[in-house]
Amino acid sequence: MPIDVDEVRTQTRGVLNVVHFNNAGSSLMPRPVVDTVVGHLRREEEIGGYEAAEEASGRLENVYSSVARLIGARPDEVALAENGSRAWAAAVYSLPFIPRGRLLIGRTEYAGNVLALRQLAERHDLEIVVLRDDEHGQVDVEHLQSELEHGNVAMVALTHVPMANGLVNPAAEVGKRCRAAGVMFVLDACQSVGQMPLDVQALGCDVLAGTGRKFLRGPRGTAFLYVRAAVLEQLKPPMLDGHSASPAGASGFEIRSDARRFESWESSAAGRLGLGRAADYALALGLDAVQERVAGLAELLRTELAAVPGVTVHDGGITRCGIVTFSVAGREAGGIRRQLAEHRINVSAVPRPHSSCTGTPPVPEMLVRASVHYYNTEAEVQLACARVMAKRP
Amino acid sequence: MPIDVDEVRTQTRGVLNVVHFNNAGSSLMPRPVVDTVVGHLRREEEIGGYEAAEEASGRLENVYSSVARLIGARPDEVALAENGSRAWAAAVYSLPFIPRGRLLIGRTEYAGNVLALRQLAERHDLEIVVLRDDEHGQVDVEHLQSELEHGNVAMVALTHVPMANGLVNPAAEVGKRCRAAGVMFVLDACQSVGQMPLDVQALGCDVLAGTGRKFLRGPRGTAFLYVRAAVLEQLKPPMLDGHSASPAGASGFEIRSDARRFESWESSAAGRLGLGRAADYALALGLDAVQERVAGLAELLRTELAAVPGVTVHDGGITRCGIVTFSVAGREAGGIRRQLAEHRINVSAVPRPHSSCTGTPPVPEMLVRASVHYYNTEAEVQLACARVMAKRP
Repeated sequence: MPIDVDEVRTQTRGVLNVVHFNNAGSSLMPRPVVDTVVGHLRREEEIGGYEAAEEASGRLENVYSSVARLIGARPDEVALAENGSRAWAAAVYSLPFIPRGRLLIGRTEYAGNVLALRQLAERHDLEIVVLRDDEHGQVDVEHLQSELEHGNVAMVALTHVPMANGLVNPAAEVGKRCRAAGVMFVLDACQSVGQMPLDVQALGCDVLAGTGRKFLRGPRGTAFLYVRAAVLEQLKPPMLDGHSASPAGASGFEIRSDARRFESWESSAAGRLGLGRAADYALALGLDAVQERVAGLAELLRTELAAVPGVTVHDGGITRCGIVTFSVAGREAGGIRRQLAEHRINVSAVPRPHSSCTGTPPVPEMLVRASVHYYNTEAEVQLACARVMAKRP
Repeated sequence: MPIDVDEVRTQTRGVLNVVHFNNAGSSLMPRPVVDTVVGHLRREEEIGGYEAAEEASGRLENVYSSVARLIGARPDEVALAENGSRAWAAAVYSLPFIPRGRLLIGRTEYAGNVLALRQLAERHDLEIVVLRDDEHGQVDVEHLQSELEHGNVAMVALTHVPMANGLVNPAAEVGKRCRAAGVMFVLDACQSVGQMPLDVQALGCDVLAGTGRKFLRGPRGTAFLYVRAAVLEQLKPPMLDGHSASPAGASGFEIRSDARRFESWESSAAGRLGLGRAADYALALGLDAVQERVAGLAELLRTELAAVPGVTVHDGGITRCGIVTFSVAGREAGGIRRQLAEHRINVSAVPRPHSSCTGTPPVPEMLVRASVHYYNTEAEVQLACARVMAKRP
């Protein structure tokens, strides 16, 4: 069933105030999500934080099932986290690295992940190999294949949807190659979750990290981690507490067997409930319908932008997503962002990804990123393009 | 100025519903704190998560100053975190351990911390030395002194207020000895912050971790970490991202110089604002006045409980705090907790600390913990004691 745009806009208070094209940053929460978070906070205020959590214990447990359904996993393969970077890192820093192992990553791997990998490379004497992009700007699967055959690969890390080039990397194909080579595949799905269907079996990933605040429309400060049951035992969390482990004997410890070994005890119960509600909300709409609407609107935006004099759209890829990047000849991305903000149109300015470095005219260092969601409208697309076309007053 | 109990109760919606003696678990948030959190969430709903954060950027920055004021630190020595365990761990896992180093800890060190230390001990071939309690049940400073003189000490870790024995450990005295010995002193202040004045200079600690949700009356899922500027450079965070570090050259990285090296990029902005508001709220009341009121009420509770037939109060220490632990002959702690909960009196049931293991009659394995705050009243103390005295219906 296609998205009922009027209905989802009725449930999205923010559309009365802003044209929100910053969904790749942090989207507008729908009313049921905010109400869930606020409702729990009020309950904490009324009866106490632990008492409210006890009362909501069933609903808190259901958050794991909701997230699991969203990605085709089992609830015991899901951990909750404060943010996507921590979720991703909890698993990646747990991997059993062997000196001189090679880490294969895409060119558009999320910059924060790359810093973590550089630290791991230094700590464990590893080599980071950056895979080439293919002619579409997505990860080159044949280069991946040849590097896998070269051997000694400790891990393949891929960002499913890079932050700034409009494309969806061929993750399932990467997963297939990794599975065949017996290599751990870590997928950063922070920008894909909530804007398209995800299925960890089809993707073939061993680890997947996702965030709440972006296309999933959950609260800030929420995220999740999936770790395939078959590899859980091999992954020893980099840090422990009384939630992730228990004492064993006079000086030992035992790490819990499910994915919650990557969690720590305390968290915002209100935020978690909001994350679960966001997952349920997305599932109720249907992720196929979401993807169709998001991709369609983004394509319309690309077409309309490309028709504006001086505008270049920089997106690559075969399968595209809700992220649209562009530049305007003679104008700075930051200035365009501010100009649009004055008209209550939210976009962001982001560093140019490596994959767009070539071309004529040369691609500027900063691009404007307009990221649409299903609750945006064709009229908003027209409005934004008109504002880009208009000279700054 | 003493606490105006009527005033603080007017600002605490929960007191209309419950007698909240679970402040060592998670206290009742005052109205200004909840309103701050909810207000920001509503703003995120209205204009977007990043846009709301940009609008509140000055207030978000002020959270660091508020926390710094609360503990006598500089804002650049403060990091924010999701919870106290993670805050504590971020610093402790960053320490430059040398094989066969010794970790000195108190007998009542927080159980979650002990698990982390056991992992570190295994990882770096360290020895954990548990310091004796003195005759009051607090950490034995003379034993500490002799162990420091024995040498090869990598760190002293102390829980300022243990979770279940009513006492305040002599942290400043421990700090003095550590400073003299040139040994790193890590203080877990999760149960002390918000119920008494804290000053990192007077305490002599190099690292201090505190949580928002307990006596500080902040939101769940909030915490902070203090690291003395002089030792920051030595502490390399166990995990990095694009917030804690930046790229340097083709494969290197540079860790940021302030305490935010222990943070990661994304968090709940609403929660952080709530934490800052809670710190401001406590500072406005005055922590001396808070401590006087809390300690006085707790002492009243001990006296009244001790007068109930069959009740034994188990608290030790010279300086006592808002935590009161007791048992009732022939009854289980869990049963008492549930009975009181039926009458809307919130307490918790906690494992007996090691320091209470001796005594006649023998101390049961689980104790009832009633932890009071300044907004509790003498009448609530009487009511709770009457309910403990009453047979279960």
